Amino acid sequence: MKEKITVIKVGGKIVEESESLSNLLNCFTETAGSKVLVHGGGRSATRMAERLGIESRMVNGRRVTDSETLQIVTMVYGGLVNKNIVAQLQARGINALGLTGADCNIIKAHKRPKGEIDYGFAGDVDSADGQMLSNIIKMGIVPVIAPLTHDGKGNMLNTNADTIAAETAKALAKHYDVTLIYCFEHPGVMRNPDDPESLIDTITHESYRRLLDDGTVSGGMIPKIDNAFSAIDNGVREVIITRADAIDGIHGTHITA
Amino acid sequence: MKEKITVIKVGGKIVEESESLSNLLNCFTETAGSKVLVHGGGRSATRMAERLGIESRMVNGRRVTDSETLQIVTMVYGGLVNKNIVAQLQARGINALGLTGADCNIIKAHKRPKGEIDYGFAGDVDSADGQMLSNIIKMGIVPVIAPLTHDGKGNMLNTNADTIAAETAKALAKHYDVTLIYCFEHPGVMRNPDDPESLIDTITHESYRRLLDDGTVSGGMIPKIDNAFSAIDNGVREVIITRADAIDGIHGTHITA
Repeated sequence: MKEKITVIKVGGKIVEESESLSNLLNCFTETAGSKVLVHGGGRSATRMAERLGIESRMVNGRRVTDSETLQIVTMVYGGLVNKNIVAQLQARGINALGLTGADCNIIKAHKRPKGEIDYGFAGDVDSADGQMLSNIIKMGIVPVIAPLTHDGKGNMLNTNADTIAAETAKALAKHYDVTLIYCFEHPGVMRNPDDPESLIDTITHESYRRLLDDGTVSGGMIPKIDNAFSAIDNGVREVIITRADAIDGIHGTHITA
Repeated sequence: MKEKITVIKVGGKIVEESESLSNLLNCFTETAGSKVLVHGGGRSATRMAERLGIESRMVNGRRVTDSETLQIVTMVYGGLVNKNIVAQLQARGINALGLTGADCNIIKAHKRPKGEIDYGFAGDVDSADGQMLSNIIKMGIVPVIAPLTHDGKGNMLNTNADTIAAETAKALAKHYDVTLIYCFEHPGVMRNPDDPESLIDTITHESYRRLLDDGTVSGGMIPKIDNAFSAIDNGVREVIITRADAIDGIHGTHITA
């Protein structure tokens, strides 16, 4: 039987406010067994761009990354947000290691081809190196992964954190029994966002089709659940969408085959 | 007999200009055997502080690091400079891993006590973890270390890169036969800075005393050579001070016991 591991992805809003970050890191510290944290940081990048007088351009919720914006996300995600989390986990006795996809070449990616929109230095993930990650984790180290990859030609690439979490979970599935947890501000996928009692406990491939057809799942939730099923279909045991203070593996919406 | 390793420290000016960085990384790539790169980045931090309207205050060549400045050095050293080097080494086939002292807790440090000058979030190094670094290096990974440590209480600390290089070399000396190379813009320690023929080939404890007495070594060179002897006195085989394009272990000023 494979050892259990939990990959937790936490969005910008939670990691960018000191109280919510502190609560999240306390919950993360209490999570039993091997674990990996994947973080965002978009709001901090937007704020830093504003301070530097650089316009943030978003298309379909994705940042257009010109070379100046690439410098900002590299320093904000890879430096400011990542090292702050690493230092705070070390203070909690967790031997954290901050990584981007370039570090130890843990994620292979390529620059997104120009389509109708040129997203600039945006990375599309090819694969994560489950063997290298597993070797690192077996040293008692907890990877903390920033939403950055590289193109193998010397350039960093701005990369979606949900995708990095799913690809990391998939790559680890060859070595571990993987649970992937996406945290955000809601208790899970809701039938009615205004009714906290309307949480959907479980989504399967079959029920997902119905939820899409009747419009219960729409907008930004679609790529998140698509990422979740991509993980499930590639060996990840379970994906949970939940609130950051409820990453116990019980609460939230459970996505299974 | 211990395996050889080279720890190379490279200053801000070299890593902050794309042509000199590229040349340095080519030389670093050609360096045989196990290796570690330690980098600075002060000029980039000063430029970023300027762009953000934050004043850079230096006392005795050291940056006074208030909490806003700490954010800048964390993102510039740990993000911008470090990840740029890592991505460029990956492009050269070197499996680089960007680290700060907080990552894997490789360097233990404390906040410098307030003396006559309060340097703020400045780190004084207690020790580097040679065993952890050695485990990482034995995986075929090349550490690239930014001049940042942490206090174990959740705060990053701005830390002198020369000191980090010396402490890393010392910690590795238990596991490797270590050569520490400090690169800068001159061919080495010069009797007369204006005369390129006046390179001092070798400095020993004994000759250092004379060079200090007659004023040949002065100013910013003193802490660099003090760091070098601290490494020599703690198991490092040789320290070389040389130009960035001459890190072959032959050129430059050789500092030995």
